[in-house]
Amino acid sequence: MRVAKVIGNIWSTRKEEKLSGFKLLIVQPINVLDGSLDKAPIVAADTIGAGVGETVIVVGGSSARSAAGDMSVPVDATVVGIVDDQEIDPDVLQ
Amino acid sequence: MRVAKVIGNIWSTRKEEKLSGFKLLIVQPINVLDGSLDKAPIVAADTIGAGVGETVIVVGGSSARSAAGDMSVPVDATVVGIVDDQEIDPDVLQ
Amino acid sequence: MRVAKVIGNIWSTRKEEKLSGFKLLIVQPINVLDGSLDKAPIVAADTIGAGVGETVIVVGGSSARSAAGDMSVPVDATVVGIVDDQEIDPDVLQ
Amino acid sequence: MRVAKVIGNIWSTRKEEKLSGFKLLIVQPINVLDGSLDKAPIVAADTIGAGVGETVIVVGGSSARSAAGDMSVPVDATVVGIVDDQEIDPDVLQ
Amino acid sequence: MRVAKVIGNIWSTRKEEKLSGFKLLIVQPINVLDGSLDKAPIVAADTIGAGVGETVIVVGGSSARSAAGDMSVPVDATVVGIVDDQEIDPDVLQ
Repeated sequence: MRVAKVIGNIWSTRKEEKLSGFKLLIVQPINVLDGSLDKAPIVAADTIGAGVGETVIVVGGSSARSAAGDMSVPVDATVVGIVDDQEIDPDVLQ
Repeated sequence: MRVAKVIGNIWSTRKEEKLSGFKLLIVQPINVLDGSLDKAPIVAADTIGAGVGETVIVVGGSSARSAAGDMSVPVDATVVGIVDDQEIDPDVLQ
Repeated sequence: MRVAKVIGNIWSTRKEEKLSGFKLLIVQPINVLDGSLDKAPIVAADTIGAGVGETVIVVGGSSARSAAGDMSVPVDATVVGIVDDQEIDPDVLQ
Repeated sequence: MRVAKVIGNIWSTRKEEKLSGFKLLIVQPINVLDGSLDKAPIVAADTIGAGVGETVIVVGGSSARSAAGDMSVPVDATVVGIVDDQEIDPDVLQ
Repeated sequence: MRVAKVIGNIWSTRKEEKLSGFKLLIVQPINVLDGSLDKAPIVAADTIGAGVGETVIVVGGSSARSAAGDMSVPVDATVVGIVDDQEIDPDVLQ
């Protein structure tokens, strides 16, 4: 899973029917070591009510469909958790 | 999912039989933060009638087959939505 | 899916039994915008009779197994079409 | 699979229900040739009791769900082994 | 599939039970055009008896589980063939 910041929303009216009812967020993957941006933002489905500004955990690939609760929903990224806290021991990398 | 611009069409006559009936689009993934190009263009199946110039949401991996409505269709990228609007709060990244 | 050039063949005698009967091609992903090389060449299974020098569409991931016609065949890239023509509108990216 | 160092923990209270009971680790993929960091850290589910500072093997994609013992658990990275030892013959790359 | 060199072995005693019985190899993906290294080495399961120094074909993603002969084995890279020979026509890229 990736850690990302929710940075916005994206709307689509003309879309695959099975996406109806899913809120689509724009999330920016970040490097937890220093908070820097990692790769381009992606679009993730939200099922837990994450809001702009929150740090979240995003699951990708077919597992995003598990997270959506229905393996036929065409999503490849889903928010699965809102981060409360993290603790990193940078000395491990020395 | 990725946000991309539809930039063209690609045609193939000699192809895997199960691809028949799918329109194949050339889509350029873009970085929604600044509109810059992100990675090389890819080929995506279209099931919702997206046209050249439109900004779309593309799903990848096995989920692209869910989007195609048949898990036996050999696609790994499918257009699942046409973007109406997006709203990004860049301050979140400061 | 990715657009690639078929640049060669690769042979393996000692291999996973279920790969028997599949021709293995070396394909070079290209950027359709300018024909430049994108990433390193990969090995793709061929089921439609693509030859060296042809421009093809390659599907990746689990969808490559759909393309091989048997989900138990251990391939992650399969040629699914030979490109006849493509049409790109570069103005869309301006 | 990737070799990674466990560098920390991450906690989420508001999360997808099926993630409950899984410890979430922050792991930093490393290049086994020289120990350098490779890509950004990711979040991996732990089912074998790996601790901070340990070198582990991480499986990604849908296989991470196999590792979690339940294909409906929405994870895309799971620790599947703690590395005891590795032996590399760098001459092979000359 | 990727072409890679087998450069070493990696051992894990405390591991996911279903990995037992699989030999784990360290393989270095290479660019077949010039033999240069491509990306960091990965860990691949071996079912065909590949040895250090051999050039192999590695399959990734869920297809690695097909190759392991059991879709519940948590692997995302498996050696599926030992390369006998390859033939590339570099003129195709001119």
